[in-house]
Amino acid sequence: MIGNVDVSRLSLNQITTENWSLKEAVDGCVRHDIPAISVWRHKIAEIGLKESKHLIHSSGLGVSSVCRGGMFPAPTASERQARIDDNKRAIEETAELGSNVLVLVCGPAPNKDIQESRKWVREGIESIIPFAEQQGVKLGIEPLHPMFAADRSVITTLGEANALQASLGSTQVGVVVDVFHVWWDPFLYQEIEHAKGNIFGFHVSDWKVPLPDIFKGRSMMGEGIIDIPRIRKAVEKNGYHDFIEVEVINQEIWDTPGDETLKLMKNSFASYV
Amino acid sequence: MIGNVDVSRLSLNQITTENWSLKEAVDGCVRHDIPAISVWRHKIAEIGLKESKHLIHSSGLGVSSVCRGGMFPAPTASERQARIDDNKRAIEETAELGSNVLVLVCGPAPNKDIQESRKWVREGIESIIPFAEQQGVKLGIEPLHPMFAADRSVITTLGEANALQASLGSTQVGVVVDVFHVWWDPFLYQEIEHAKGNIFGFHVSDWKVPLPDIFKGRSMMGEGIIDIPRIRKAVEKNGYHDFIEVEVINQEIWDTPGDETLKLMKNSFASYV
Repeated sequence: MIGNVDVSRLSLNQITTENWSLKEAVDGCVRHDIPAISVWRHKIAEIGLKESKHLIHSSGLGVSSVCRGGMFPAPTASERQARIDDNKRAIEETAELGSNVLVLVCGPAPNKDIQESRKWVREGIESIIPFAEQQGVKLGIEPLHPMFAADRSVITTLGEANALQASLGSTQVGVVVDVFHVWWDPFLYQEIEHAKGNIFGFHVSDWKVPLPDIFKGRSMMGEGIIDIPRIRKAVEKNGYHDFIEVEVINQEIWDTPGDETLKLMKNSFASYV
Repeated sequence: MIGNVDVSRLSLNQITTENWSLKEAVDGCVRHDIPAISVWRHKIAEIGLKESKHLIHSSGLGVSSVCRGGMFPAPTASERQARIDDNKRAIEETAELGSNVLVLVCGPAPNKDIQESRKWVREGIESIIPFAEQQGVKLGIEPLHPMFAADRSVITTLGEANALQASLGSTQVGVVVDVFHVWWDPFLYQEIEHAKGNIFGFHVSDWKVPLPDIFKGRSMMGEGIIDIPRIRKAVEKNGYHDFIEVEVINQEIWDTPGDETLKLMKNSFASYV
């Protein structure tokens, strides 16, 4: 179960240090020799894009992705258009920060017809592809665990994300594999093979038993039951060799001083990924 | 979204009134004209099988199922055999209570190899089929929501349950469809068609947003986002016309006086199933 991943692939997904500003997170990464960061848009909004860009560029950090675009389903056409416009802003921010990948959390259904929302997701992504191409930003569909189907994403499995990717027929679109969301899936390894060449991100955390919470339910690698190295090796075998984001949404970790979290994260990464 | 189901199909899954003994639940069903009950084994154990049988038979209630067998994976062969032996006792109890269906909650993995546990589940079910045939008890594989994959069942989708059923090749084995566990699945309606003729049970509750809890997260029908009538019509179209169990695991409902719960349940059933 013990991993042997190269620590130079470590990226801090900024939600792991939710109580830190972007400046604190960037400084923390530099201080702890963490080579990359994944930036969240609500943290960009706090200080503005220009200042965010300056912080990132002067730090020398890689930006593994920007979180997040998506949230396509909405009850009216004008609301859906507003979501699409917001996704274009997210694409611009991604390009400005020098990142190649915008992560798409596709959004929940506004009614009981989940299949209709899946169509809106497809239409939404389709409509932003030309702009993403123009900006040089890849769109990574991240399937979320089915326990988030009602409030975060109607795209719930890697198989579904792959089918969506295939139906869009664009190399601008791929998938993001997050072990917390996909570990349970009986078709996981087949679908990682199907995603070959289209994997745009790999996120790690762990599933502790019992789960401490639903939204804030993730734990540091090694504390749970996910066979992380096996999933990592599968995504590597299928073409993904880029940064690995540690994305831990957990109140106890948020309440821990950020420097302690980064130390713990580096150790967990080296030992269990 | 409003249902129009026949109330004569209503069955109280006993976990909905967890604070009631079997006698209280049976008396409650009789008092409220609820024609059937699904009996949990820990409630049988409280008073013994003989007394349970007497209670049920003298009440005239139907027994839609017994909950539950399963829990097959275990780290050693002798432990797995002990689980199989316990499943045989569950089959006997089901037959004694005059029910046709034992619900199987297949069990979590004792280690990080979830696929190995899926094999143990298959082996476990296979080994109890002859005894189930002899006792005239059907085995209903209930796929559980993937959020329970780490602590309750490695069988997480209806597709997986159908594949397991098909691989066992026995008409003694079928599936149980619980809307709370399967509503999110992009392949739900296809898999209900695949299950045609093999559906041994149908359970209802609802998924409220935000979910109040993980294990105790279910709500009364009508309080959440599941399109229950659509799923009911699909299982009916594919051959299931028997009792519909209301299975609500929710602390607030458990803390409500049972008679109030039964009234609420009947109204919710008539309006939203």
